[in-house]
Amino acid sequence: MHALFDIPADLAPLAAFLAERLQVVSRRFDDELASDLPPVAALCRHIERYKGKMLRPSLVLLSGLAAHPRAADLPPQAILGDEHTDVAAVCEMVHMATLVHDDVLDEAEVRRRGATINHLQGNEPAVILGDYLFASAYHLCARLQSPEPARAIARASAALCAGELLQLHHRNNHSLDEPTYDRIITLKTAELVAVAAELGAHVAGAAPASQAALARYARLVGEAFQIQDDILDLLGSVDVVGKSTGKDLEKGKLTLPLIHHLAHAEPLAALRTLEILRSIPGGDFRPGTDSTRILEAVEATGSVEYARSRARTRVADAKACLSALPASPARTLLAAMADAVVDRAY
Amino acid sequence: MHALFDIPADLAPLAAFLAERLQVVSRRFDDELASDLPPVAALCRHIERYKGKMLRPSLVLLSGLAAHPRAADLPPQAILGDEHTDVAAVCEMVHMATLVHDDVLDEAEVRRRGATINHLQGNEPAVILGDYLFASAYHLCARLQSPEPARAIARASAALCAGELLQLHHRNNHSLDEPTYDRIITLKTAELVAVAAELGAHVAGAAPASQAALARYARLVGEAFQIQDDILDLLGSVDVVGKSTGKDLEKGKLTLPLIHHLAHAEPLAALRTLEILRSIPGGDFRPGTDSTRILEAVEATGSVEYARSRARTRVADAKACLSALPASPARTLLAAMADAVVDRAY
Repeated sequence: MHALFDIPADLAPLAAFLAERLQVVSRRFDDELASDLPPVAALCRHIERYKGKMLRPSLVLLSGLAAHPRAADLPPQAILGDEHTDVAAVCEMVHMATLVHDDVLDEAEVRRRGATINHLQGNEPAVILGDYLFASAYHLCARLQSPEPARAIARASAALCAGELLQLHHRNNHSLDEPTYDRIITLKTAELVAVAAELGAHVAGAAPASQAALARYARLVGEAFQIQDDILDLLGSVDVVGKSTGKDLEKGKLTLPLIHHLAHAEPLAALRTLEILRSIPGGDFRPGTDSTRILEAVEATGSVEYARSRARTRVADAKACLSALPASPARTLLAAMADAVVDRAY
Repeated sequence: MHALFDIPADLAPLAAFLAERLQVVSRRFDDELASDLPPVAALCRHIERYKGKMLRPSLVLLSGLAAHPRAADLPPQAILGDEHTDVAAVCEMVHMATLVHDDVLDEAEVRRRGATINHLQGNEPAVILGDYLFASAYHLCARLQSPEPARAIARASAALCAGELLQLHHRNNHSLDEPTYDRIITLKTAELVAVAAELGAHVAGAAPASQAALARYARLVGEAFQIQDDILDLLGSVDVVGKSTGKDLEKGKLTLPLIHHLAHAEPLAALRTLEILRSIPGGDFRPGTDSTRILEAVEATGSVEYARSRARTRVADAKACLSALPASPARTLLAAMADAVVDRAY
């Protein structure tokens, strides 16, 4: 588990509390997946190591702290209980399920410096293990007192799948536009991130306005996160990011830098990029040479910087949403998390 | 949609009512999957044709009718309401999700005489469409008044995945024994069938004893159904069954006839079968010649008949469970359904 960012020194007590609670969430996650069937248990132990930045669980916990009606006079220990732990574990489980299925789709071999399930054991167990993670997530949240988390999680999961299907539909569509890209990243990434923050506030008994503000904040953070992910995939190498990168191009997935580039390049430059992109479905794409040429072209139109600016705008808007909440260490940490999303290099 | 069996003439009014309600369930299913995203809507329209025997929805509805405390003096229309429709649609959706993912695992090209999604569009949309079906099922049952259906459906889905993982683990295990086979079919098939019947009774406000009797009945029916499916796969051809068959052998999946055969054949005969089975992982298996040789060997030890007898015993036990319920047309139909499961040739 790697924290998303270095926590400012004045927030050290909250940071220590959060780190400790994320460990509790992690154990809850593992316990819920435990199986008396040895092959199932072995697969679940393997994916425990996939747990990474814990963005969604962190949002559940911090939103609960920031939005609780008595946030000012109660210690964090009195605000966060078992239900927060459960909801946080559920959000991470749904996310993990999508990672396991994404690795099948992407034919990825490496995830968080470990071999992917599909690489180790083939696609079949990877597909079913993803289903098992989804089912376990639903089972955990269906057992909570309030019916709201189960509804919200299922709704966000359906949105997530719809976003992935939309993205697959536009594979090798070289005229994909920014509004469609925006729709895809909102559905496939930002809705679940938004639900994590909203449910954290909901379980804390926050006012509807606070829940809505946190959902808006987190949706924008989720979008910025996905834009940054897409930039890193384009720029990245397997050593820095710790998972297979450069996959978007190979898979014919147009992301924001390329969309901007194609819309703004000189006709001849755009044509040269399109020629490379059109070679991908036929299998003529050369990962080293061709991705370097594309990257140079994309940089020449300032398109990576453009994508970065779209991510930064969302982070600024996200932080503005937080003004609906009273000042608190948790609110400060949420603002710092938003910044960290676009500052990260992994 | 094909009914599982011809309904006896004296049950005609109930049969007509059931057929009409299954149409309502089918529309509920389609409405719930509807999407404003054209590529998602197109995929969902394609799988509408997969709806087949509607075993699980039928069990939800008939169990509701058979177990309702006032079954004797209320007309069926007064017993079954929207919640039965919803639960029936949910059970079919979860089942359909597993079919779509099974087709990916089996590399099947045909399902209910239509092309599979993976064959038409590749594995990626098939994996995500299955996830979308699961999420939509959970979303629908999470919106019901009672929290019980969401819990039971999620629990059964997790069991189903665990069963599939157990089966994958034992692929090409030529010493798989009958208790492990039983465990696999209970988890991967019978648990969801049991939950369908149990929830039908639960939603009708049935006594816990009636719910439990129907769950036991349906679990046995589900096991018999899977044994019959496995027999049909071994015997079948694509023309009769309407989906790709003979896949179990090719995929190294040992089913009851083969398990019995290997345990009861003369040493030399068992060795000959094992030699063919061992050729499968290396890709040397010849579907026509080798599957015929296996089928002959399996018939020679009476192993297909043995598997049939194991299915018939379960059907008899299932029907015995129904005696916990008062006599009614719905109970008679449930008994007839149990018989139909082992009599079917498709």
